[in-house]
Amino acid sequence: MASSHPLDPVFNPASIAVVGASADPRKIGGRPIAYMQRSGFSRPLYPINPRQREIQGLQAYPSLRDVGRPVDQVIVAVAGEHVPAAVEEAVAQQARSIIVFSSGFAEMGDEGRRVQDQIAARCREAGIPLVGPNCIGVFSARQAMYATFMTALEHELFEPGSVGIATQSGAIGSYLYGLAGDRGVRFSQFIATGNEAAVDVADCIDWMAQDDATSVVMAYLEGCRDGERLYRALRRAQAARKPVILMKVGRSAQGAAAAASHTGSLAGADAVYDAILRETNAWRADSLEEMVDVAYACSTSVLPRGPRLGVITPSGGVGVIAADEAARAGLTLPVLPPQTQQAIRDIIPFASGVNPVDTTAQTVGDRSLYTRILDIVFRHEGFDSVLSFNASMGRSEAEFAKVRSALYELRRAHPQTVVALSMRATPEIAAELGREGILYFADPSRATATIGALARIAAGFDRPAEAAVAMQAAQPLPEGVLDEATARRLLEGAGVPFVGQAIARSADEAAAAAEACGYPVVLKVLSPDIAHKSDVGGVLLGLKDAAAVRAGWSSMMDKVRTACPAARLEGAIVSPMVAGGVETVMGAVRDPVFGPMVMFGLGGVFVEVFQDVTFRRAPVSLQTAREMIQEVQGLPLLTGARGKPKADLGTLAQALVDLSRFAVAHRDEVASVEINPFIALPEGGVAVDALILR
Amino acid sequence: MASSHPLDPVFNPASIAVVGASADPRKIGGRPIAYMQRSGFSRPLYPINPRQREIQGLQAYPSLRDVGRPVDQVIVAVAGEHVPAAVEEAVAQQARSIIVFSSGFAEMGDEGRRVQDQIAARCREAGIPLVGPNCIGVFSARQAMYATFMTALEHELFEPGSVGIATQSGAIGSYLYGLAGDRGVRFSQFIATGNEAAVDVADCIDWMAQDDATSVVMAYLEGCRDGERLYRALRRAQAARKPVILMKVGRSAQGAAAAASHTGSLAGADAVYDAILRETNAWRADSLEEMVDVAYACSTSVLPRGPRLGVITPSGGVGVIAADEAARAGLTLPVLPPQTQQAIRDIIPFASGVNPVDTTAQTVGDRSLYTRILDIVFRHEGFDSVLSFNASMGRSEAEFAKVRSALYELRRAHPQTVVALSMRATPEIAAELGREGILYFADPSRATATIGALARIAAGFDRPAEAAVAMQAAQPLPEGVLDEATARRLLEGAGVPFVGQAIARSADEAAAAAEACGYPVVLKVLSPDIAHKSDVGGVLLGLKDAAAVRAGWSSMMDKVRTACPAARLEGAIVSPMVAGGVETVMGAVRDPVFGPMVMFGLGGVFVEVFQDVTFRRAPVSLQTAREMIQEVQGLPLLTGARGKPKADLGTLAQALVDLSRFAVAHRDEVASVEINPFIALPEGGVAVDALILR
Repeated sequence: MASSHPLDPVFNPASIAVVGASADPRKIGGRPIAYMQRSGFSRPLYPINPRQREIQGLQAYPSLRDVGRPVDQVIVAVAGEHVPAAVEEAVAQQARSIIVFSSGFAEMGDEGRRVQDQIAARCREAGIPLVGPNCIGVFSARQAMYATFMTALEHELFEPGSVGIATQSGAIGSYLYGLAGDRGVRFSQFIATGNEAAVDVADCIDWMAQDDATSVVMAYLEGCRDGERLYRALRRAQAARKPVILMKVGRSAQGAAAAASHTGSLAGADAVYDAILRETNAWRADSLEEMVDVAYACSTSVLPRGPRLGVITPSGGVGVIAADEAARAGLTLPVLPPQTQQAIRDIIPFASGVNPVDTTAQTVGDRSLYTRILDIVFRHEGFDSVLSFNASMGRSEAEFAKVRSALYELRRAHPQTVVALSMRATPEIAAELGREGILYFADPSRATATIGALARIAAGFDRPAEAAVAMQAAQPLPEGVLDEATARRLLEGAGVPFVGQAIARSADEAAAAAEACGYPVVLKVLSPDIAHKSDVGGVLLGLKDAAAVRAGWSSMMDKVRTACPAARLEGAIVSPMVAGGVETVMGAVRDPVFGPMVMFGLGGVFVEVFQDVTFRRAPVSLQTAREMIQEVQGLPLLTGARGKPKADLGTLAQALVDLSRFAVAHRDEVASVEINPFIALPEGGVAVDALILR
Repeated sequence: MASSHPLDPVFNPASIAVVGASADPRKIGGRPIAYMQRSGFSRPLYPINPRQREIQGLQAYPSLRDVGRPVDQVIVAVAGEHVPAAVEEAVAQQARSIIVFSSGFAEMGDEGRRVQDQIAARCREAGIPLVGPNCIGVFSARQAMYATFMTALEHELFEPGSVGIATQSGAIGSYLYGLAGDRGVRFSQFIATGNEAAVDVADCIDWMAQDDATSVVMAYLEGCRDGERLYRALRRAQAARKPVILMKVGRSAQGAAAAASHTGSLAGADAVYDAILRETNAWRADSLEEMVDVAYACSTSVLPRGPRLGVITPSGGVGVIAADEAARAGLTLPVLPPQTQQAIRDIIPFASGVNPVDTTAQTVGDRSLYTRILDIVFRHEGFDSVLSFNASMGRSEAEFAKVRSALYELRRAHPQTVVALSMRATPEIAAELGREGILYFADPSRATATIGALARIAAGFDRPAEAAVAMQAAQPLPEGVLDEATARRLLEGAGVPFVGQAIARSADEAAAAAEACGYPVVLKVLSPDIAHKSDVGGVLLGLKDAAAVRAGWSSMMDKVRTACPAARLEGAIVSPMVAGGVETVMGAVRDPVFGPMVMFGLGGVFVEVFQDVTFRRAPVSLQTAREMIQEVQGLPLLTGARGKPKADLGTLAQALVDLSRFAVAHRDEVASVEINPFIALPEGGVAVDALILR
């Protein structure tokens, strides 16, 4: 390990005591001892049990104190009511990490949460990392360290590998261990954080990011209490070029409701998770199966250098299936150069050499034709990944034997290329392929989708991280309610350009202001008590002359007074109408988990009906702001669709930068900012209205 | 079989001859004989080979004629150049079906296509169904009829089942046979149609729809030459309540390009396939794996009565995963009534009885707690499907034995409920569950998605089919180019309401017309040679008085003449501006495969940028037209979003009906119709512009 990390004593303890040790290897207090005995944990292991002198062949001690030597890690496996005393004793004995299996805490209600908080506070004071309570524990495969009662290990103990699992839920973690294990994935580290009284999944990702034994991380989250911590951990993994495949459940309203009844964790907005995970290059999996697919692929294969996929198949149909999925997955299918196509046809005259390469079924009768064509495809060197469909070849050892050595030779001769086989295969052949660094999938679409995931993950490692932005200390916001004029002044001060305006206290002042700025004008009521002016008749558009302004003033004030009798009406804002631009919306929200986020979308229905918006963690650089603009589906409206002039995207991006910096500078004072609309013009752009909520 | 069908002799021949029979059971001409001998085909089987007297224990004949008895089905397995003669002899011998394995026809180029067309014409004249050429053949499992050289059958010959496979590609069909077979799916019938010189996949679906042995159809298509035939076949399957799970590849541009280089079939627009398959209740699968999942589920389980899903799990996390996927799949998770929740908590105090039911891990230690809670969930009778997550229980026979009998009893006691288990399981336990009518999936998301598919398929069977619409013979369209005025007159005649208009031949006439209809007005150039008027400056909006109309006339005519010097300018159309409505687009296109289709979407960017449109086969009923309007994403704009008044959807729907009937009445004359915009108003609605292309 490069340097010390607060979680080192969790994963790499010098000695372990099990408080509540059991002689029964199937009890919660017996399993860790049984697993470590079986696997050969080489460091001291102390069963603690006041009623036994020996447990599973080891000397047992009545209490931690009685061990008489330093105990590095204390596993607590006693009934819930005895946990506080056990933790107290571990602290007293200067344990360096504590893992509490026992349940009966926050998951049971307020009283349990209170006790849990006490335990956590005690460990925090003592500087001891606490895992759990209500967790199935930790293992570190290379050290044969099994501080866990995970039942799957009784029957399925795999040799060590390079994939780490960090999971809130022990049940999901165990299931992933089994599911991924079935696919040949092997594990370096495992931790289930349970109630997360102290150590959370983010901490564990952070530790795995610097763990030499771990090259890929699978993470499962139901909620997150500290978004900044998760963000930093994911950034660290990204910098270490370790793929993180993360599942965050509760995407749908239905799922979020189920999650809320199941966990007390705060749920940030789902779109915000998407933004954070994209920014940190974590792969967000939608299902356990997808998580296993991508982790399997990342731990089995090199990552591709780019999106170029070559497909070779004896069935044209499978080529089309792969091409369809490649389009979804962001992969390209470059056409092979004519001489390569000719070389393929020299072997099989009626083969299609374009890409997908359709060898025809002739290769089934004579497998050497297949391996010769495969050789040509590899030698071409223009593909970052090669997917070969081989029907049921892998179900017959005799058939597979015909291609084995040629296939493995090609694999070794082209170490930078991702190689995937889609076929039906025996478990033995599937496992063998994995050991050779060749991906195996029965379904060709899943193979293609997974290669697409690898390509995106690889590209994300090469994307420069958002540079840290130096933020100057900001003036606190003025006291009191923030009316539109104040919001405007603050945002203008932050750099956001606004449409010209004047504040009028009377109809006469309004008419004079309109004359000064030029017709047509907009009249908007000014009141600290009215957030949504147009809903109460407080906005008049397109007033064409002084008479219209005066008449508008009276009718508007009447309407607003009727709608909001208690509102203080301070006058009205007069602005010129802005013509010829595209309405956009910019916003900033303080996400309960991740803090200030900045949002961009096209205005009106595009936000409200199509939810066509994109988020980023604030502050953003100009480059990131430009990416946000490129991401919205309605982008063509800003780039000249339907005969509109192209909008000035530079001004738009700069306004997003300024807004994002404002949101960060006032992160503790501001709940949300909405600039709606910000009108993107062919040259420049202006905010027309702004709302700041504390 | 209920009544006779043209394909009966293909699937159920009274006798079979193999022309080009081989003594080698691994040769193409040897396999069908070997398979049928092994399986006990009980009807006469005649090997035809001029050089052998006996083949695989059967008497061989030098020619078909030499058999001396009627031969019902002739399999042709000779080299391509001998195929025409073999077909000729089969026709002469009055065969009732011909299956040509041999390749070397349309897939090889024009000469091959010519010969193929000759063979097909010969069979058509003689009234004999021809399967292939270039196909791997047909089997009918219950009759042990294996008129195929599919190599998978050598190693994996399953007992008969109820799933039919109809596939263009033999390779894909074989792979599906293996993939689905691995999941426990068993097959009634199989046919690969290869080059489809005569019999196509649609014919085979049609046959399977009336085949008593088949209850589920898997169909694989790369293209389709006769959309009407496919539509009728799918309708027939729908009427028979037989799920059809269909994969049509070439969804993406990339995939379509790959398909075009691989097959000569016409490709209809992909969105049109979506519309046709939705209308006929065929399930469109996106991958082979999804196809297998849904076919497996349809052939293993009853279909659910509705979308209500109950989830029971020892892990809250899996409940959230299922809830997320249920939202995507259109399933609901109704909350259990309080007394049911209480009954669950009486068994496990800290269980969550809401739904998902979280039993906590206590059920893992005592499986009887699980089966008791499961019983309560079933007795509640409020779920159409129940999904139970059981972690790795199915990997241990000892663990599974603890729940087996209670589970099967519940399954039998609630025969109308879909029951699915998500867990890791041994192949033996997975297969056993299938035999008991219980679905099994390792991945809980896939389990949920598949239950969602079943619910949608079931709902589709209950949806009334579009009533056949009596179409009156239409007057042929006028000769010559169809300018806007003509298009308008024709569509008005069909019932579509248009905005008022006058045709002006001069600036003075335009001004007079404008006075008559009221300002502001629109001026549009009238020319049979200009389709997109606004692109050439031929549309002026919002002219406010007679002077503006006169000035506009001159400037517009100048612009148009400069842009289109050769265009005949016949004058201009004068219409009042329509205010206060929502722009929609209606269209009709003649799909090359499926014929007239009607399209609806919101106008402008919603069509162009968001592709927010929906299609139906024309003509549509008022009910279907209303469904189309409900389907577009931008629907809120028509139902009062953003303070707009609600649009008159009845008028909108009626206009779609009228347009669709027009498109059908003129199906041979009209390539496309576009009404853009059709302005939906709070009361009524009007077409503003229309374009008809031949």
